[in-house]
Amino acid sequence: MSVKVDSKSIAQEILDNHDTFLFDCDGVLWLGTSLLPKVVETINLLRSLNKQVIFVTNNSTKSRAEYTQKFLKFGLKVDKTEIFGSAFAAAIYVSKIVNLPKDKKVWVLGQNGIEEELRELGYTTIGGTDKELDQPFSTDLKFIKETDKDVACVVVGLDLNINYYRMAATLKYLQNPDIPFIATNIDSTFPQKGLVLPGAGSIIESVAFGSGRTPISCGKPEKGMMDAIRSSFKIDDDRTIMIGDRLNTDMVFGRTNNLDTLLVLTGIETEANIAKLDKNVQPTYFANKLGDLFELTSI
Amino acid sequence: MSVKVDSKSIAQEILDNHDTFLFDCDGVLWLGTSLLPKVVETINLLRSLNKQVIFVTNNSTKSRAEYTQKFLKFGLKVDKTEIFGSAFAAAIYVSKIVNLPKDKKVWVLGQNGIEEELRELGYTTIGGTDKELDQPFSTDLKFIKETDKDVACVVVGLDLNINYYRMAATLKYLQNPDIPFIATNIDSTFPQKGLVLPGAGSIIESVAFGSGRTPISCGKPEKGMMDAIRSSFKIDDDRTIMIGDRLNTDMVFGRTNNLDTLLVLTGIETEANIAKLDKNVQPTYFANKLGDLFELTSI
Repeated sequence: MSVKVDSKSIAQEILDNHDTFLFDCDGVLWLGTSLLPKVVETINLLRSLNKQVIFVTNNSTKSRAEYTQKFLKFGLKVDKTEIFGSAFAAAIYVSKIVNLPKDKKVWVLGQNGIEEELRELGYTTIGGTDKELDQPFSTDLKFIKETDKDVACVVVGLDLNINYYRMAATLKYLQNPDIPFIATNIDSTFPQKGLVLPGAGSIIESVAFGSGRTPISCGKPEKGMMDAIRSSFKIDDDRTIMIGDRLNTDMVFGRTNNLDTLLVLTGIETEANIAKLDKNVQPTYFANKLGDLFELTSI
Repeated sequence: MSVKVDSKSIAQEILDNHDTFLFDCDGVLWLGTSLLPKVVETINLLRSLNKQVIFVTNNSTKSRAEYTQKFLKFGLKVDKTEIFGSAFAAAIYVSKIVNLPKDKKVWVLGQNGIEEELRELGYTTIGGTDKELDQPFSTDLKFIKETDKDVACVVVGLDLNINYYRMAATLKYLQNPDIPFIATNIDSTFPQKGLVLPGAGSIIESVAFGSGRTPISCGKPEKGMMDAIRSSFKIDDDRTIMIGDRLNTDMVFGRTNNLDTLLVLTGIETEANIAKLDKNVQPTYFANKLGDLFELTSI
Protein backbone atom coordinates (compact mmCIF):
# COMPACT_ATOMS: atom_id res chain seq x y z
CA MET A 1 0.00 0.00 0.00
CA SER A 2 1.48 3.32 -1.09
CA VAL A 3 2.38 5.79 1.70
CA LYS A 4 1.52 9.45 1.18
CA VAL A 5 4.35 11.89 1.86
CA ASP A 6 2.33 14.33 3.96
CA SER A 7 4.28 14.71 7.20
CA LYS A 8 7.75 15.70 8.32
CA SER A 9 8.42 12.19 9.67
CA ILE A 10 7.69 10.45 6.36
CA ALA A 11 9.70 12.98 4.34
CA GLN A 12 12.57 12.60 6.82
CA GLU A 13 12.34 8.78 6.56
CA ILE A 14 12.83 9.04 2.79
CA LEU A 15 15.91 11.25 3.24
CA ASP A 16 17.37 9.06 5.99
CA ASN A 17 16.85 5.70 4.29
CA HIS A 18 18.30 6.51 0.85
CA ASP A 19 21.75 7.45 -0.42
CA THR A 20 20.91 7.55 -4.13
CA PHE A 21 17.98 9.44 -5.69
CA LEU A 22 17.07 8.65 -9.30
CA PHE A 23 14.87 11.29 -10.92
CA ASP A 24 12.72 11.32 -13.98
CA CYS A 25 12.82 14.90 -15.35
CA ASP A 26 9.71 16.08 -17.23
CA GLY A 27 6.69 16.01 -14.91
CA VAL A 28 8.95 15.78 -11.83
CA LEU A 29 11.44 18.66 -12.05
CA TRP A 30 9.69 20.70 -14.71
CA LEU A 31 6.69 20.68 -17.02
CA GLY A 32 8.00 21.56 -20.48
CA THR A 33 9.58 24.98 -19.94
CA SER A 34 8.19 25.64 -16.41
CA LEU A 35 10.18 24.67 -13.31
CA LEU A 36 8.01 23.02 -10.63
CA PRO A 37 7.88 24.56 -7.10
CA LYS A 38 10.78 24.01 -4.66
CA VAL A 39 12.64 21.70 -7.04
CA VAL A 40 15.94 23.62 -6.84
CA GLU A 41 15.65 23.71 -3.03
CA THR A 42 15.01 19.94 -2.90
CA ILE A 43 17.98 19.06 -5.12
CA ASN A 44 20.22 21.46 -3.15
CA LEU A 45 19.04 19.85 0.10
CA LEU A 46 19.95 16.38 -1.21
CA ARG A 47 23.37 17.57 -2.34
CA SER A 48 23.99 19.21 1.07
CA LEU A 49 23.27 15.80 2.64
CA ASN A 50 25.83 14.19 0.29
CA LYS A 51 23.18 12.19 -1.53
CA GLN A 52 23.94 10.91 -5.03
CA VAL A 53 21.47 12.43 -7.51
CA ILE A 54 21.00 10.86 -10.95
CA PHE A 55 18.65 12.04 -13.69
CA VAL A 56 17.03 9.40 -15.90
CA THR A 57 15.04 10.52 -18.94
CA ASN A 58 13.48 8.73 -21.89
CA ASN A 59 13.71 11.87 -24.04
CA SER A 60 16.23 11.01 -26.78
CA THR A 61 16.06 14.28 -28.69
CA LYS A 62 18.79 15.87 -26.54
CA SER A 63 22.27 14.56 -25.71
CA ARG A 64 23.49 14.63 -22.10
CA ALA A 65 25.63 17.67 -22.91
CA GLU A 66 22.55 19.51 -24.22
CA TYR A 67 20.62 18.43 -21.12
CA THR A 68 23.10 20.09 -18.77
CA GLN A 69 22.22 23.39 -20.48
CA LYS A 70 18.51 22.80 -19.87
CA PHE A 71 19.19 22.12 -16.15
CA LEU A 72 21.33 25.25 -15.94
CA LYS A 73 18.52 27.40 -17.34
CA PHE A 74 16.43 26.29 -14.35
CA GLY A 75 19.28 27.09 -11.93
CA LEU A 76 20.31 23.45 -11.49
CA LYS A 77 24.01 22.67 -11.85
CA VAL A 78 24.18 19.07 -12.99
CA ASP A 79 27.18 17.20 -14.34
CA LYS A 80 26.87 15.30 -17.63
CA THR A 81 27.84 12.09 -15.81
CA GLU A 82 24.75 12.43 -13.59
CA ILE A 83 22.38 12.31 -16.60
CA PHE A 84 21.16 9.09 -18.23
CA GLY A 85 19.07 9.68 -21.35
CA SER A 86 17.63 6.97 -23.55
CA ALA A 87 19.89 8.11 -26.41
CA PHE A 88 22.92 7.52 -24.17
CA ALA A 89 21.53 4.14 -23.02
CA ALA A 90 21.03 3.15 -26.68
CA ALA A 91 24.59 4.17 -27.55
CA ILE A 92 25.93 2.17 -24.59
CA TYR A 93 23.86 -0.81 -25.79
CA VAL A 94 25.33 -0.54 -29.30
CA SER A 95 28.84 -0.41 -27.87
CA LYS A 96 28.71 -2.87 -24.97
CA ILE A 97 26.00 -5.40 -25.88
CA VAL A 98 25.96 -5.36 -29.71
CA ASN A 99 29.74 -4.88 -29.54
CA LEU A 100 29.57 -3.02 -32.83
CA PRO A 101 33.08 -2.50 -34.27
CA LYS A 102 33.99 1.19 -34.49
CA ASP A 103 34.49 1.00 -38.27
CA LYS A 104 30.83 0.11 -38.74
CA LYS A 105 28.12 2.76 -39.18
CA VAL A 106 24.81 3.22 -37.39
CA TRP A 107 21.69 4.22 -39.36
CA VAL A 108 19.69 6.65 -37.20
CA LEU A 109 15.98 7.48 -37.37
CA GLY A 110 15.87 10.16 -34.71
CA GLN A 111 17.27 13.49 -33.62
CA ASN A 112 20.56 15.00 -32.59
CA GLY A 113 20.66 13.39 -29.12
CA ILE A 114 21.11 9.92 -30.62
CA GLU A 115 23.70 11.06 -33.17
CA GLU A 116 25.75 12.93 -30.58
CA GLU A 117 25.82 10.07 -28.03
CA LEU A 118 26.86 7.56 -30.72
CA ARG A 119 29.56 9.87 -32.06
CA GLU A 120 30.88 10.37 -28.52
CA LEU A 121 31.43 6.60 -28.33
CA GLY A 122 33.35 6.73 -31.61
CA TYR A 123 30.67 5.68 -34.10
CA THR A 124 29.83 7.20 -37.46
CA THR A 125 26.11 7.82 -37.91
CA ILE A 126 24.18 8.05 -41.15
CA GLY A 127 20.60 9.22 -41.73
CA GLY A 128 19.27 11.07 -38.66
CA THR A 129 19.26 14.84 -39.10
CA ASP A 130 20.85 14.78 -42.58
CA LYS A 131 19.08 17.56 -44.56
CA GLU A 132 19.04 15.25 -47.60
CA LEU A 133 16.27 13.35 -45.79
CA ASP A 134 14.01 16.42 -45.49
CA GLN A 135 12.97 16.08 -49.16
CA PRO A 136 9.60 14.88 -50.45
CA PHE A 137 9.84 11.18 -51.28
CA SER A 138 10.75 9.70 -54.63
CA THR A 139 12.33 6.34 -55.49
CA ASP A 140 15.30 8.15 -57.09
CA LEU A 141 16.60 9.67 -53.86
CA LYS A 142 20.09 8.88 -52.59
CA PHE A 143 19.27 6.82 -49.47
CA ILE A 144 16.66 4.78 -51.37
CA LYS A 145 18.92 3.99 -54.34
CA GLU A 146 22.13 3.41 -52.36
CA THR A 147 22.71 0.90 -49.57
CA ASP A 148 25.74 1.65 -47.37
CA LYS A 149 27.45 -1.72 -46.81
CA ASP A 150 29.08 -0.39 -43.62
CA VAL A 151 25.74 0.12 -41.85
CA ALA A 152 25.53 -2.68 -39.25
CA CYS A 153 23.03 -1.33 -36.71
CA VAL A 154 19.81 0.74 -36.69
CA VAL A 155 18.84 3.03 -33.78
CA VAL A 156 15.36 4.59 -33.74
CA GLY A 157 13.90 7.22 -31.40
CA LEU A 158 11.60 10.22 -31.37
CA ASP A 159 11.92 12.25 -34.57
CA LEU A 160 9.89 15.41 -35.11
CA ASN A 161 11.25 15.42 -38.68
CA ILE A 162 9.82 11.98 -39.49
CA ASN A 163 8.70 11.65 -43.11
CA TYR A 164 8.19 8.91 -45.72
CA TYR A 165 11.80 9.20 -46.99
CA ARG A 166 13.17 8.57 -43.48
CA MET A 167 10.73 5.70 -42.89
CA ALA A 168 11.51 4.04 -46.24
CA ALA A 169 15.31 4.34 -45.86
CA THR A 170 15.12 2.92 -42.32
CA LEU A 171 12.90 0.05 -43.49
CA LYS A 172 15.48 -0.79 -46.16
CA TYR A 173 18.15 -1.49 -43.53
CA LEU A 174 15.70 -3.31 -41.23
CA GLN A 175 14.94 -5.78 -44.03
CA ASN A 176 18.37 -7.25 -43.35
CA PRO A 177 17.74 -9.48 -40.31
CA ASP A 178 21.44 -9.41 -39.40
CA ILE A 179 21.24 -5.68 -38.59
CA PRO A 180 20.24 -5.16 -34.91
CA PHE A 181 17.18 -2.93 -34.35
CA ILE A 182 17.58 -0.74 -31.25
CA ALA A 183 14.92 1.65 -29.88
CA THR A 184 15.73 4.45 -27.43
CA ASN A 185 12.35 3.95 -25.71
CA ILE A 186 8.82 2.95 -26.61
CA ASP A 187 6.68 5.64 -24.92
CA SER A 188 3.57 5.87 -27.07
CA THR A 189 3.06 9.58 -26.41
CA PHE A 190 5.17 12.70 -25.84
CA PRO A 191 3.33 15.18 -23.60
CA GLN A 192 4.24 18.80 -24.44
CA LYS A 193 2.53 22.05 -23.38
CA GLY A 194 -0.65 20.25 -22.40
CA LEU A 195 -0.75 18.39 -25.73
CA VAL A 196 -0.47 14.65 -26.25
CA LEU A 197 1.92 14.28 -29.20
CA PRO A 198 3.20 11.07 -30.83
CA GLY A 199 6.02 9.53 -28.78
CA ALA A 200 9.11 7.57 -29.80
CA GLY A 201 7.01 4.40 -29.70
CA SER A 202 4.71 5.73 -32.43
CA ILE A 203 7.67 6.43 -34.72
CA ILE A 204 9.23 3.05 -33.94
CA GLU A 205 5.95 1.14 -34.45
CA SER A 206 5.74 2.34 -38.06
CA VAL A 207 9.09 0.81 -39.09
CA ALA A 208 8.62 -2.18 -36.76
CA PHE A 209 5.32 -3.04 -38.49
CA GLY A 210 6.79 -2.51 -41.95
CA SER A 211 9.72 -4.82 -41.22
CA GLY A 212 7.82 -7.33 -39.08
CA ARG A 213 10.50 -6.87 -36.40
CA THR A 214 10.45 -5.95 -32.70
CA PRO A 215 13.18 -3.60 -31.44
CA ILE A 216 15.30 -3.92 -28.30
CA SER A 217 14.24 -0.94 -26.16
CA CYS A 218 16.83 0.80 -23.97
CA GLY A 219 14.75 3.38 -22.05
CA LYS A 220 12.74 3.05 -18.87
CA PRO A 221 11.29 0.65 -17.81
CA GLU A 222 13.79 -1.62 -19.61
CA LYS A 223 16.76 -3.12 -17.83
CA GLY A 224 19.25 -1.56 -20.29
CA MET A 225 18.90 1.86 -18.68
CA MET A 226 19.66 0.51 -15.18
CA ASP A 227 22.62 -1.48 -16.55
CA ALA A 228 24.03 1.76 -17.93
CA ILE A 229 23.60 3.48 -14.54
CA ARG A 230 25.19 0.57 -12.65
CA SER A 231 28.16 0.62 -15.02
CA SER A 232 28.90 4.20 -13.88
CA PHE A 233 27.80 4.29 -10.21
CA LYS A 234 27.84 1.91 -7.27
CA ILE A 235 24.13 1.42 -6.51
CA ASP A 236 23.01 -0.09 -3.20
CA ASP A 237 19.50 -1.25 -4.16
CA ASP A 238 18.27 -1.11 -0.56
CA ARG A 239 19.22 2.55 -0.24
CA THR A 240 18.13 3.84 -3.66
CA ILE A 241 14.81 5.42 -4.63
CA MET A 242 13.34 6.11 -8.08
CA ILE A 243 11.21 9.27 -8.31
CA GLY A 244 8.93 9.75 -11.30
CA ASP A 245 5.52 10.80 -12.59
CA ARG A 246 4.53 7.74 -14.66
CA LEU A 247 3.34 4.45 -13.21
CA ASN A 248 3.99 2.44 -16.41
CA THR A 249 7.59 3.57 -16.95
CA ASP A 250 9.19 5.24 -13.90
CA MET A 251 7.50 3.18 -11.20
CA VAL A 252 7.85 -0.11 -13.11
CA PHE A 253 11.51 0.76 -13.72
CA GLY A 254 12.13 1.28 -9.99
CA ARG A 255 10.19 -1.78 -8.88
CA THR A 256 11.67 -4.24 -11.39
CA ASN A 257 15.13 -3.05 -10.37
CA ASN A 258 14.31 -3.69 -6.67
CA LEU A 259 14.35 -0.01 -5.72
CA ASP A 260 11.97 1.99 -3.53
CA THR A 261 9.72 4.27 -5.59
CA LEU A 262 8.11 7.69 -5.14
CA LEU A 263 5.37 8.83 -7.50
CA VAL A 264 4.81 12.58 -7.79
CA LEU A 265 1.42 13.84 -8.95
CA THR A 266 2.74 16.80 -10.96
CA GLY A 267 2.77 14.78 -14.20
CA ILE A 268 0.15 12.53 -15.73
CA GLU A 269 -0.98 10.34 -12.80
CA THR A 270 -3.56 10.83 -10.05
CA GLU A 271 -4.08 9.29 -6.60
CA ALA A 272 -7.04 7.38 -8.14
CA ASN A 273 -4.68 5.71 -10.63
CA ILE A 274 -2.57 4.38 -7.73
CA ALA A 275 -5.67 2.99 -6.01
CA LYS A 276 -6.54 1.03 -9.17
CA LEU A 277 -3.29 -0.96 -8.85
CA ASP A 278 -2.81 -4.16 -6.89
CA LYS A 279 -1.21 -3.23 -3.54
CA ASN A 280 2.05 -5.08 -4.23
CA VAL A 281 2.73 -3.06 -7.40
CA GLN A 282 1.85 0.35 -5.97
CA PRO A 283 4.71 2.84 -5.51
CA THR A 284 6.39 2.76 -2.09
CA TYR A 285 5.48 6.45 -1.63
CA PHE A 286 3.51 9.14 -3.40
CA ALA A 287 3.61 12.93 -3.00
CA ASN A 288 1.72 15.89 -4.44
CA LYS A 289 5.04 17.25 -5.68
CA LEU A 290 8.78 16.62 -5.38
CA GLY A 291 9.20 19.94 -3.50
CA ASP A 292 7.25 18.46 -0.55
CA LEU A 293 10.47 16.66 0.47
CA PHE A 294 12.01 20.11 1.06
CA GLU A 295 8.95 21.86 2.43
CA LEU A 296 7.99 19.15 4.93
CA THR A 297 11.52 18.72 6.32
CA SER A 298 12.04 22.49 6.65
CA ILE A 299 9.06 22.97 8.97
CA MET B 1 -4.09 -28.98 -53.08
CA SER B 2 -3.49 -26.13 -55.52
CA VAL B 3 -3.82 -26.99 -59.24
CA LYS B 4 -1.24 -25.53 -61.62
CA VAL B 5 -2.66 -23.81 -64.70
CA ASP B 6 -0.33 -25.47 -67.22
CA SER B 7 -2.64 -27.03 -69.83
CA LYS B 8 -5.41 -25.95 -72.19
CA SER B 9 -7.96 -28.09 -70.31
CA ILE B 10 -7.32 -26.47 -66.95
CA ALA B 11 -7.32 -22.94 -68.39
CA GLN B 12 -10.57 -23.75 -70.22
CA GLU B 13 -12.07 -25.14 -67.00
CA ILE B 14 -11.42 -21.80 -65.27
CA LEU B 15 -13.11 -19.91 -68.11
CA ASP B 16 -16.07 -22.28 -68.27
CA ASN B 17 -16.75 -22.48 -64.53
CA HIS B 18 -16.73 -18.76 -63.70
CA ASP B 19 -18.88 -15.80 -64.70
CA THR B 20 -17.17 -13.18 -62.53
CA PHE B 21 -13.43 -12.54 -62.38
CA LEU B 22 -12.10 -10.37 -59.53
CA PHE B 23 -8.60 -9.04 -60.15
CA ASP B 24 -5.95 -7.57 -57.91
CA CYS B 25 -4.04 -5.05 -60.05
CA ASP B 26 -0.37 -4.50 -59.11
CA GLY B 27 1.57 -7.77 -59.49
CA VAL B 28 -1.25 -9.29 -61.59
CA LEU B 29 -1.96 -6.83 -64.44
CA TRP B 30 1.17 -4.72 -64.15
CA LEU B 31 4.28 -4.25 -62.05
CA GLY B 32 4.46 -0.54 -61.22
CA THR B 33 4.61 1.08 -64.67
CA SER B 34 5.18 -2.11 -66.72
CA LEU B 35 2.25 -4.06 -68.18
CA LEU B 36 2.62 -7.83 -67.73
CA PRO B 37 2.54 -10.11 -70.85
CA LYS B 38 -0.78 -10.94 -72.54
CA VAL B 39 -2.83 -9.08 -69.91
CA VAL B 40 -4.78 -7.00 -72.44
CA GLU B 41 -5.46 -10.14 -74.51
CA THR B 42 -6.72 -12.01 -71.42
CA ILE B 43 -9.07 -9.22 -70.32
CA ASN B 44 -10.36 -8.84 -73.91
CA LEU B 45 -10.95 -12.62 -74.08
CA LEU B 46 -12.99 -12.50 -70.86
CA ARG B 47 -15.06 -9.55 -72.13
CA SER B 48 -15.68 -11.37 -75.44
CA LEU B 49 -17.06 -14.29 -73.40
CA ASN B 50 -19.38 -11.86 -71.53
CA LYS B 51 -17.60 -12.40 -68.23
CA GLN B 52 -17.96 -9.74 -65.52
CA VAL B 53 -14.52 -8.31 -64.71
CA ILE B 54 -13.98 -6.38 -61.46
CA PHE B 55 -10.74 -4.81 -60.27
CA VAL B 56 -10.03 -4.81 -56.54
CA THR B 57 -7.04 -2.86 -55.24
CA ASN B 58 -5.79 -1.91 -51.78
CA ASN B 59 -3.96 1.12 -53.17
CA SER B 60 -5.77 4.13 -51.69
CA THR B 61 -3.59 6.86 -53.20
CA LYS B 62 -5.73 7.02 -56.35
CA SER B 63 -9.49 7.44 -56.71
CA ARG B 64 -11.43 5.14 -59.04
CA ALA B 65 -11.62 7.96 -61.61
CA GLU B 66 -7.81 8.29 -61.53
CA TYR B 67 -7.48 4.52 -61.82
CA THR B 68 -9.43 4.42 -65.10
CA GLN B 69 -6.70 6.69 -66.55
CA LYS B 70 -3.99 4.26 -65.42
CA PHE B 71 -5.85 1.34 -67.09
CA LEU B 72 -6.26 3.37 -70.26
CA LYS B 73 -2.50 4.05 -70.45
CA PHE B 74 -2.02 0.26 -70.63
CA GLY B 75 -4.69 -0.07 -73.33
CA LEU B 76 -7.38 -1.35 -70.97
CA LYS B 77 -10.77 0.32 -71.18
CA VAL B 78 -12.30 -0.08 -67.73
CA ASP B 79 -15.36 1.63 -66.32
CA LYS B 80 -15.14 3.39 -62.95
CA THR B 81 -17.92 1.12 -61.65
CA GLU B 82 -15.72 -1.94 -62.29
CA ILE B 83 -13.01 -0.66 -59.92
CA PHE B 84 -13.06 -1.16 -56.13
CA GLY B 85 -10.22 0.60 -54.35
CA SER B 86 -9.68 0.63 -50.60
CA ALA B 87 -10.30 4.41 -50.56
CA PHE B 88 -13.73 3.79 -52.12
CA ALA B 89 -14.42 0.91 -49.70
CA ALA B 90 -13.49 3.22 -46.78
CA ALA B 91 -15.80 5.97 -48.08
CA ILE B 92 -18.64 3.44 -48.46
CA TYR B 93 -17.96 2.28 -44.88
CA VAL B 94 -18.15 5.87 -43.58
CA SER B 95 -21.42 6.42 -45.40
CA LYS B 96 -23.24 3.08 -44.99
CA ILE B 97 -21.87 1.59 -41.76
CA VAL B 98 -20.82 4.62 -39.70
CA ASN B 99 -23.83 6.44 -41.19
CA LEU B 100 -21.96 9.70 -40.82
CA PRO B 101 -24.30 12.67 -41.40
CA LYS B 102 -23.27 14.70 -44.45
CA ASP B 103 -22.78 17.87 -42.39
CA LYS B 104 -19.97 16.20 -40.43
CA LYS B 105 -16.34 16.33 -41.56
CA VAL B 106 -13.81 13.53 -42.01
CA TRP B 107 -10.19 14.04 -40.90
CA VAL B 108 -7.94 12.34 -43.47
CA LEU B 109 -4.39 11.06 -43.05
CA GLY B 110 -3.74 9.94 -46.58
CA GLN B 111 -3.68 11.02 -50.20
CA ASN B 112 -6.03 12.31 -52.85
CA GLY B 113 -7.77 8.97 -53.48
CA ILE B 114 -9.37 9.03 -50.04
CA GLU B 115 -10.35 12.70 -50.26
CA GLU B 116 -11.90 12.31 -53.69
CA GLU B 117 -13.97 9.21 -52.83
CA LEU B 118 -15.30 10.86 -49.66
CA ARG B 119 -16.15 14.08 -51.50
CA GLU B 120 -17.96 12.07 -54.16
CA LEU B 121 -20.23 10.70 -51.41
CA GLY B 122 -20.92 14.27 -50.25
CA TYR B 123 -18.49 14.60 -47.34
CA THR B 124 -16.16 17.47 -46.49
CA THR B 125 -12.63 16.34 -45.75
CA ILE B 126 -10.03 18.11 -43.64
CA GLY B 127 -6.30 17.35 -43.29
CA GLY B 128 -5.15 15.01 -46.07
CA THR B 129 -3.26 16.81 -48.83
CA ASP B 130 -3.70 20.32 -47.31
CA LYS B 131 -0.38 22.14 -47.97
CA GLU B 132 -0.61 23.64 -44.49
CA LEU B 133 0.36 20.17 -43.21
CA ASP B 134 3.62 20.07 -45.20
CA GLN B 135 5.30 22.36 -42.65
CA PRO B 136 7.93 21.36 -40.10
CA PHE B 137 6.23 20.70 -36.76
CA SER B 138 5.67 23.22 -34.01
CA THR B 139 3.01 23.33 -31.29
CA ASP B 140 1.77 26.69 -32.66
CA LEU B 141 0.51 25.32 -35.97
CA LYS B 142 -3.14 25.63 -36.98
CA PHE B 143 -4.23 21.97 -36.82
CA ILE B 144 -2.48 21.47 -33.46
CA LYS B 145 -3.97 24.58 -31.83
CA GLU B 146 -7.47 24.26 -33.31
CA THR B 147 -9.88 21.35 -32.98
CA ASP B 148 -12.67 21.30 -35.57
CA LYS B 149 -15.82 20.34 -33.67
CA ASP B 150 -17.44 19.08 -36.89
CA VAL B 151 -14.86 16.31 -37.37
CA ALA B 152 -16.68 13.07 -36.50
CA CYS B 153 -14.61 10.41 -38.30
CA VAL B 154 -10.93 9.69 -39.08
CA VAL B 155 -9.82 7.82 -42.23
CA VAL B 156 -6.17 6.77 -42.56
CA GLY B 157 -4.33 5.26 -45.53
CA LEU B 158 -1.01 5.32 -47.31
CA ASP B 159 0.52 8.81 -47.27
CA LEU B 160 3.85 9.52 -48.95
CA ASN B 161 3.66 12.99 -47.36
CA ILE B 162 3.46 11.64 -43.82
CA ASN B 163 5.22 13.86 -41.28
CA TYR B 164 5.06 14.63 -37.56
CA TYR B 165 2.51 17.43 -38.05
CA ARG B 166 0.11 15.04 -39.83
CA MET B 167 0.68 12.32 -37.22
CA ALA B 168 0.16 14.71 -34.28
CA ALA B 169 -3.00 16.29 -35.74
CA THR B 170 -4.47 12.84 -36.49
CA LEU B 171 -3.61 11.62 -32.98
CA LYS B 172 -5.48 14.63 -31.55
CA TYR B 173 -8.75 13.50 -33.14
CA LEU B 174 -8.15 9.82 -32.29
CA GLN B 175 -7.90 10.75 -28.61
CA ASN B 176 -11.66 11.23 -28.72
CA PRO B 177 -12.97 7.64 -28.44
CA ASP B 178 -16.31 8.66 -29.98
CA ILE B 179 -14.62 9.38 -33.33
CA PRO B 180 -14.53 6.20 -35.48
CA PHE B 181 -11.05 5.19 -36.73
CA ILE B 182 -11.19 3.76 -40.27
CA ALA B 183 -8.20 2.36 -42.21
CA THR B 184 -8.22 1.87 -45.97
CA ASN B 185 -6.07 -1.27 -45.61
CA ILE B 186 -3.32 -2.58 -43.38
CA ASP B 187 -0.71 -3.87 -45.87
CA SER B 188 2.61 -3.53 -44.04
CA THR B 189 4.58 -2.84 -47.22
CA PHE B 190 4.10 -1.10 -50.57
CA PRO B 191 6.22 -2.77 -53.28
CA GLN B 192 7.36 -0.28 -55.95
CA LYS B 193 10.02 -0.67 -58.64
CA GLY B 194 11.64 -3.64 -56.90
CA LEU B 195 11.71 -1.75 -53.59
CA VAL B 196 9.87 -2.66 -50.41
CA LEU B 197 8.47 0.65 -49.15
CA PRO B 198 6.34 1.30 -46.04
CA GLY B 199 2.69 0.40 -46.68
CA ALA B 200 -0.55 1.88 -45.39
CA GLY B 201 -0.29 -0.40 -42.36
CA SER B 202 3.00 1.23 -41.31
CA ILE B 203 1.43 4.69 -41.42
CA ILE B 204 -1.67 3.48 -39.57
CA GLU B 205 0.34 1.62 -36.90
CA SER B 206 2.04 4.87 -35.82
CA VAL B 207 -1.23 6.64 -34.95
CA ALA B 208 -2.84 3.41 -33.73
CA PHE B 209 0.01 2.91 -31.21
CA GLY B 210 -0.05 6.56 -30.15
CA SER B 211 -3.79 6.45 -29.49
CA GLY B 212 -3.93 2.89 -28.15
CA ARG B 213 -6.70 2.18 -30.69
CA THR B 214 -7.22 -0.43 -33.43
CA PRO B 215 -8.77 0.75 -36.71
CA ILE B 216 -11.53 -0.88 -38.74
CA SER B 217 -9.82 -1.94 -41.98
CA CYS B 218 -11.78 -1.80 -45.25
CA GLY B 219 -9.32 -3.29 -47.77
CA LYS B 220 -8.59 -6.89 -48.71
CA PRO B 221 -8.76 -9.33 -46.98
CA GLU B 222 -11.45 -7.64 -44.88
CA LYS B 223 -15.13 -8.25 -45.44
CA GLY B 224 -15.87 -4.55 -46.04
CA MET B 225 -14.40 -4.66 -49.54
CA MET B 226 -16.58 -7.64 -50.56
CA ASP B 227 -19.66 -5.97 -49.05
CA ALA B 228 -18.98 -2.94 -51.27
CA ILE B 229 -18.70 -5.19 -54.36
CA ARG B 230 -21.87 -7.13 -53.50
CA SER B 231 -23.76 -3.84 -53.07
CA SER B 232 -22.99 -3.03 -56.74
CA PHE B 233 -22.97 -6.42 -58.50
CA LYS B 234 -24.86 -9.69 -58.23
CA ILE B 235 -22.15 -12.17 -57.24
CA ASP B 236 -22.75 -15.94 -57.53
CA ASP B 237 -20.10 -17.24 -55.14
CA ASP B 238 -19.91 -20.61 -56.88
CA ARG B 239 -19.07 -19.00 -60.23
CA THR B 240 -16.69 -16.26 -59.07
CA ILE B 241 -12.89 -16.41 -58.90
CA MET B 242 -10.43 -14.04 -57.16
CA ILE B 243 -7.11 -13.60 -58.96
CA GLY B 244 -4.18 -12.07 -57.10
CA ASP B 245 -0.47 -12.19 -56.30
CA ARG B 246 -0.56 -12.18 -52.48
CA LEU B 247 -1.44 -15.16 -50.33
CA ASN B 248 -2.10 -13.09 -47.18
CA THR B 249 -4.48 -10.56 -48.77
CA ASP B 250 -5.86 -11.62 -52.18
CA MET B 251 -6.07 -15.36 -51.54
CA VAL B 252 -7.40 -14.95 -47.99
CA PHE B 253 -9.94 -12.46 -49.36
CA GLY B 254 -11.17 -14.96 -51.96
CA ARG B 255 -11.24 -17.93 -49.60
CA THR B 256 -13.02 -16.19 -46.71
CA ASN B 257 -15.65 -14.97 -49.16
CA ASN B 258 -16.20 -18.55 -50.42
CA LEU B 259 -14.76 -17.87 -53.88
CA ASP B 260 -12.37 -19.91 -56.00
CA THR B 261 -8.88 -18.41 -56.08
CA LEU B 262 -6.03 -18.16 -58.57
CA LEU B 263 -2.56 -17.08 -57.45
CA VAL B 264 -0.27 -15.64 -60.12
CA LEU B 265 3.48 -15.78 -59.55
CA THR B 266 4.26 -12.41 -61.18
CA GLY B 267 4.12 -10.60 -57.82
CA ILE B 268 5.68 -11.45 -54.50
CA GLU B 269 4.85 -15.17 -54.04
CA THR B 270 6.58 -18.35 -55.22
CA GLU B 271 5.42 -21.95 -55.73
CA ALA B 272 7.40 -22.84 -52.59
CA ASN B 273 5.27 -20.41 -50.54
CA ILE B 274 2.12 -22.28 -51.64
CA ALA B 275 3.66 -25.63 -50.64
CA LYS B 276 4.30 -24.27 -47.13
CA LEU B 277 0.54 -23.81 -46.61
CA ASP B 278 -1.85 -26.41 -45.27
CA LYS B 279 -3.65 -28.00 -48.27
CA ASN B 280 -7.09 -26.67 -47.31
CA VAL B 281 -5.92 -23.04 -47.36
CA GLN B 282 -3.95 -23.24 -50.60
CA PRO B 283 -5.33 -21.32 -53.60
CA THR B 284 -7.64 -23.33 -55.87
CA TYR B 285 -5.27 -22.66 -58.81
CA PHE B 286 -1.89 -21.09 -59.43
CA ALA B 287 -0.30 -19.88 -62.68
CA ASN B 288 3.04 -18.44 -63.73
CA LYS B 289 1.17 -15.40 -65.03
CA LEU B 290 -2.36 -14.18 -65.73
CA GLY B 291 -1.64 -14.19 -69.50
CA ASP B 292 -1.45 -18.01 -69.41
CA LEU B 293 -5.26 -18.06 -69.41
CA PHE B 294 -5.12 -16.49 -72.88
CA GLU B 295 -2.05 -18.29 -74.17
CA LEU B 296 -3.15 -21.80 -73.14
CA THR B 297 -6.68 -21.45 -74.50
CA SER B 298 -5.45 -20.00 -77.84
CA ILE B 299 -3.30 -23.06 -78.68
